[in-house]
Amino acid sequence: MYDLIIIGMGISGITAAIYASRSNLKVLMLEGDAPGGTINKIPDIENYPGFSHITGPDLAMNLFETINNLKINYKLEKVTDVILEETKTVKTLHNVYQSKYLLIATGRKPRLLNIPHINEYIGKGISTCALCDGNFYKDKDIAVIGGGNSALSESLYLSKIAHTVYLIHRSSLFRGTNDLLTKVKNTPNIKIIMNEEVTNLITKNHKLIGLKLKKEKLDITGLFLYIGNIPNTEFLENTNLLLEDGYIIVNENYETNIPNVYASGDVIKKDVYQIITAASEGAIASINISQN
Amino acid sequence: MYDLIIIGMGISGITAAIYASRSNLKVLMLEGDAPGGTINKIPDIENYPGFSHITGPDLAMNLFETINNLKINYKLEKVTDVILEETKTVKTLHNVYQSKYLLIATGRKPRLLNIPHINEYIGKGISTCALCDGNFYKDKDIAVIGGGNSALSESLYLSKIAHTVYLIHRSSLFRGTNDLLTKVKNTPNIKIIMNEEVTNLITKNHKLIGLKLKKEKLDITGLFLYIGNIPNTEFLENTNLLLEDGYIIVNENYETNIPNVYASGDVIKKDVYQIITAASEGAIASINISQN
Repeated sequence: MYDLIIIGMGISGITAAIYASRSNLKVLMLEGDAPGGTINKIPDIENYPGFSHITGPDLAMNLFETINNLKINYKLEKVTDVILEETKTVKTLHNVYQSKYLLIATGRKPRLLNIPHINEYIGKGISTCALCDGNFYKDKDIAVIGGGNSALSESLYLSKIAHTVYLIHRSSLFRGTNDLLTKVKNTPNIKIIMNEEVTNLITKNHKLIGLKLKKEKLDITGLFLYIGNIPNTEFLENTNLLLEDGYIIVNENYETNIPNVYASGDVIKKDVYQIITAASEGAIASINISQN
Repeated sequence: MYDLIIIGMGISGITAAIYASRSNLKVLMLEGDAPGGTINKIPDIENYPGFSHITGPDLAMNLFETINNLKINYKLEKVTDVILEETKTVKTLHNVYQSKYLLIATGRKPRLLNIPHINEYIGKGISTCALCDGNFYKDKDIAVIGGGNSALSESLYLSKIAHTVYLIHRSSLFRGTNDLLTKVKNTPNIKIIMNEEVTNLITKNHKLIGLKLKKEKLDITGLFLYIGNIPNTEFLENTNLLLEDGYIIVNENYETNIPNVYASGDVIKKDVYQIITAASEGAIASINISQN
């Protein structure tokens, strides 16, 4: 029986664990993927105060190091189900754990395009992580889809590797910040295609060789998707936890509608999804749990 | 005329400046003391995610470096007055600056004891910064006053320098975290004195040589105060900005009651005063300003 189980070892869960450990709570962290979470997929972080520049994997490693230094208990096991009674029961593929408090900090994952055969080509020409897969496309022509900061910054990253980057956006207005948009517009090998959408993949011998858009065709061998996110809340479907569009609803103390169940980071419904905000939320949730 | 003037170069103001700069806002930062703010006075930071351990001055230097790398405009001038009309006017001792938006991130300063002659001995035996002044008391007997995390952690820091640290607390219950309290109790040269208060300084030839408490006297040559804080909002007294106990009232977007005036960090009324929360608030305030 733990005082606190934290599901998710991204920056929000890890910050919560640091604070909980300093308050002598008996903590268990559970993570189904790599410690560090989404941060692992970010090539360059230049808006996390304390570092003028750090790569995502390096920041993730720093965070994981702190967990080890503090001897915080963790298991790399995917959570499949939770039972949120007075005692919180957390089931993974192989084990069952129990605690008084639960913090859900499972983040979110990239949304995929809604076109035929998309799932078959994930990892075979289609990617949601430029840092992971960009190097497979040295001097190739590739496409990026999206209109926010991720699409812009990942296009810039990929433009240093690929021959040509087609940046395809379904609207005529980018939502990203001005500095990124200016850099993208000033990068000669990024070609912006606005008011367009992908309708079909063009494949040959099970390889991606192009895209059908509404008005044209593109020859590309790599496609990177930055078209939004889906919160990781599937394992909560048997609970009465209050969600909106899949995101967990919390109050200002990061409490959910169920007593002693908290949530923080990218998995909650909010306005600002940033590394620094996710960290802060984990700290506040943890402080509230310790003070109960 | 600037887009945004940020008063205060602590972590909250600096984080706001980083985000504003990335959104191409024309920013001016103003600081009357050292860049980095309160962080400069913290010997050891072990709860700021990304660093398992960093000294306060090192984190402050990292933050200042980022401001310089991004070529963000700043002046080391103390703000004396502001006029919060449609254009915001900020007066320093020597200059007047104007902007559309204002972010107040001036933090707070340590509270002093309410006993006779206290002000005369600040810097002459009385200190609010163990990191700044601790080394003057090598192998001496000193006292720390307070019952929260600052009093506990600074007592630990000072116990490595001084001969004996008397930790004086007016109640019988410490408000600090368990880990710190346990460490303090296990440190042989920290003597805890509970349910006591300082009523007078004992001085000789203008030097501090002891303390009169209600029930006893202590021979000490150094006194460190950690008895709470006062927000730095004196320069706002000619405005209609809504305050509570001197702290600025903000909404969830860190807007004050006056249009286009925001506040973040230790200067606002809130529940959790941490480095990571101050940084996050600066980011959210700045993002809201850019999106206006």
